[in-house]
Amino acid sequence: MSNPIDRLVQCLSRLPGIGEKTATRLAFHLVRASDEEARDLASALIEVTEEIRLCSVCANLTQADPCHTCSDVRRDSGLICVVSSPSDVVAIDKSGDFRGTFHVLHGLLSPLDGIGPNDLRIAELVRRLQFDSDGESLVQEVIIATNASVEGEATAMYMARMIKPLGVKVTRIASGIPVGGELEYTDRATIARAMSGRLPL
Amino acid sequence: MSNPIDRLVQCLSRLPGIGEKTATRLAFHLVRASDEEARDLASALIEVTEEIRLCSVCANLTQADPCHTCSDVRRDSGLICVVSSPSDVVAIDKSGDFRGTFHVLHGLLSPLDGIGPNDLRIAELVRRLQFDSDGESLVQEVIIATNASVEGEATAMYMARMIKPLGVKVTRIASGIPVGGELEYTDRATIARAMSGRLPL
Repeated sequence: MSNPIDRLVQCLSRLPGIGEKTATRLAFHLVRASDEEARDLASALIEVTEEIRLCSVCANLTQADPCHTCSDVRRDSGLICVVSSPSDVVAIDKSGDFRGTFHVLHGLLSPLDGIGPNDLRIAELVRRLQFDSDGESLVQEVIIATNASVEGEATAMYMARMIKPLGVKVTRIASGIPVGGELEYTDRATIARAMSGRLPL
Repeated sequence: MSNPIDRLVQCLSRLPGIGEKTATRLAFHLVRASDEEARDLASALIEVTEEIRLCSVCANLTQADPCHTCSDVRRDSGLICVVSSPSDVVAIDKSGDFRGTFHVLHGLLSPLDGIGPNDLRIAELVRRLQFDSDGESLVQEVIIATNASVEGEATAMYMARMIKPLGVKVTRIASGIPVGGELEYTDRATIARAMSGRLPL
């Protein structure tokens, strides 16, 4: 096989979830497809490396700084939803209802992987909880929307312990049976969580 | 979401087998990964569009013309293995034993998709079956190694009807139980094929 194709396969197989076989299939597709398709992808990649930075307020990926969420006056800047990654921002925004702002941690606490509090954008979040002359924060609520995984829970606990003493309300998104889910096919841990997290009707 | 990321997601989701969710995951990975990774991929893509062409002999993808397979004197140019796509060349080469040359059709006959004989590189193959002054071809055998699918079989039939009258031996790769496969879990069509294709021991 010729070298440029090998090189393309190698680059593609570095992507998450793309093994050598898939990378080969994609590379052959790109070679056989119109030159335009490969060029479009190349220029989109270069554009992304050149134009995307982190928002200085919420640390989300953005082209403008502050990002369009942080500079949107229709959004409630007193409500901050903390997520682990930019894709979570997209997921929550697609769910439709949330009209507050975000804060992206860029990771979750994971001592085994050597990821501690200083590796996450926690200091930036604390800086956003600015207090006025009366010692009241302009932020009314911080919603911790990390995954319901071990790392996500640990990060939520840590953040709560950090922020609560500052007098700011901290909440955690609910964990339980997914919408449309059946009890019969739900694992025990999820059912237990759903029971303990029950709400008055 | 910022525009350059959207554009990257769009370009990635045009790839075969990559839906919008996977494209989004890949795009976020590329944005968060080192700039180098995205740049490497971009340059590999551009290199491929600029340097890869079709071999004038076998129509395989190549940087040099003729390709390294066609110009390899240790390979038997009297034995041509016909495949539908460049990835099939890689698959057969990896299987190890074949020391002949290839011919890439770039597709399979598929009347429903509007793909007829003129859309495949069949004329180029016939041109390779050059005849000497005695009317004997320098090619001893053409092995049709198209998929065992309906389109692959139809293409094989068509090629055989086309080449056999020229006095060149045409063979078809065997179809049957895969190595390591169990009869119990093999579909009826494959077992029937394996039975009718039985060889003396």
